[in-house]
Amino acid sequence: MRNDQVASIYRKIQQQICTELETADGHAVFKTDHWENEIGYGYTMVLDQGDAIEKAAVNFSAVRGKVSERMRKALRIDEGEAYFATGISSIIHPRNPHAPITHMNVRYFQLSSGKAWFGGGIDLTPHYVNKQQARWFHQELKNLCDQYDADFYPNYKQWADTYFYLQHRKETRGVGGIFFDHQDGSSDAGFQKFYAFTQALAKAYPRIYTELLTLNRDKECTKEEKRWQDLRRGRYVEFNLLYDRGTKFGLESNGRTESIFLSMPPMASWTYDFQAEKGSPEEATLNLLKKDIDWIHIT
Amino acid sequence: MRNDQVASIYRKIQQQICTELETADGHAVFKTDHWENEIGYGYTMVLDQGDAIEKAAVNFSAVRGKVSERMRKALRIDEGEAYFATGISSIIHPRNPHAPITHMNVRYFQLSSGKAWFGGGIDLTPHYVNKQQARWFHQELKNLCDQYDADFYPNYKQWADTYFYLQHRKETRGVGGIFFDHQDGSSDAGFQKFYAFTQALAKAYPRIYTELLTLNRDKECTKEEKRWQDLRRGRYVEFNLLYDRGTKFGLESNGRTESIFLSMPPMASWTYDFQAEKGSPEEATLNLLKKDIDWIHIT
Repeated sequence: MRNDQVASIYRKIQQQICTELETADGHAVFKTDHWENEIGYGYTMVLDQGDAIEKAAVNFSAVRGKVSERMRKALRIDEGEAYFATGISSIIHPRNPHAPITHMNVRYFQLSSGKAWFGGGIDLTPHYVNKQQARWFHQELKNLCDQYDADFYPNYKQWADTYFYLQHRKETRGVGGIFFDHQDGSSDAGFQKFYAFTQALAKAYPRIYTELLTLNRDKECTKEEKRWQDLRRGRYVEFNLLYDRGTKFGLESNGRTESIFLSMPPMASWTYDFQAEKGSPEEATLNLLKKDIDWIHIT
Repeated sequence: MRNDQVASIYRKIQQQICTELETADGHAVFKTDHWENEIGYGYTMVLDQGDAIEKAAVNFSAVRGKVSERMRKALRIDEGEAYFATGISSIIHPRNPHAPITHMNVRYFQLSSGKAWFGGGIDLTPHYVNKQQARWFHQELKNLCDQYDADFYPNYKQWADTYFYLQHRKETRGVGGIFFDHQDGSSDAGFQKFYAFTQALAKAYPRIYTELLTLNRDKECTKEEKRWQDLRRGRYVEFNLLYDRGTKFGLESNGRTESIFLSMPPMASWTYDFQAEKGSPEEATLNLLKKDIDWIHIT
């Protein structure tokens, strides 16, 4: 069965990701919660209070149920009575505000009608945008995508720009990355292609993050920079509760709340009408939270 | 014009509320932002870093526009092409975790079809539930309601239990209060009754809060209690972004983002799978975050 096959390999990759992130942090160890309930099972792996990583969550789940009316709308499902879904979802909140927040997700959906699809993505949310590092990040994603399909990077990069966008703030969540959904998992060719691609993506994730963490974890930071980090984390909370499809799906399918809310930062703050100073690094970052930036060629 | 009449009196009451809250705090002063945009105007009044009040926001706005498809659903509007809306919305986040968060809103809606209605409410979200204070709070609301209609308190209390509920947490937001929506503002009798009632409610709000603040502002508190406060503030964020109709309406109508997000706490945190200790005050509070508690008669 394809669903068991995907679930089983995703679960293995989840464990690999955690091992690599433990090595990257150098100190902290993931704790694992195994859960089972009426809709399925999962492993929730959480790293708390590491040396460099303040909080990392790597979630695996495999669930099934009836497609509700609300799920139908939220997920744009147009056929089938029942679904199976499995995926890995991860987020990392570093301690140092000069290191970025990152997020990765791969997921496989199968409907009782036989239709199946893959979705996923990786995106980067620096508290302070570093152009060189953003360029490197996008180049890594392009290199990975190009091994599977030359159209992937340009299409999925644009998709990420559209998806990771806070309409009410007129800001992108960060420097984007790649995002894709409803990619053919029904045909044999489609299934094989995205089964391989989503695995490669999930495996690349800890390697890419380790590089960015290493570059930034020991940078000095001020109290004001920590305060800015808390404000940016507040934006992250806004995105996750107002727009994120994973959160929506989790809540609509009566998923395990503590696992759904793992993406929340350890701490976040809101200040009324915060204005970045003219010429400050904060202002420079805000000016780069835009769609359609060609990160591969930015200087 | 009724809409001008309501907007004008609500704006006056907004100023009274701020004056009374300044007196209650004893130190801090509200700052006022006047804004105007394509949909209307408003006064955003914010108190930041007071002695006892960490953050208070009192928002007044009067806006108009076309009823969009999304607003139609979100607000259950079944007729009319254009709307006018005015209201006061306020929230107070105290410093001391033994003092409660509180929220008050009164609003008036008018459609181009001629249909009009009032809505509003007051509710209390203690970080630590104090039964005696919750009972007093509900008794004050009942006394106020009973002056207008003996059915108000029982009906609106139940409505608050239903509305201020975090489905995904299986928790009420706090000890509730009263909530009402779509109350007749079209007929002369309906308009007069709710015009008076919403004013009385808005005026009672700072008096009631001052009493609760005074009782709790100087209580000693530990680091663990502050931490619990941050976690409870996290729940408040979840409610406001996932369920709150005011937030939804603000976002759907392209309202002023900084005013919409004024309800956010200054700081909030999330801890994976936090478990209150057996027999602790935190556990006692969680056990009281339930619907259908008869607060008037609790002992």
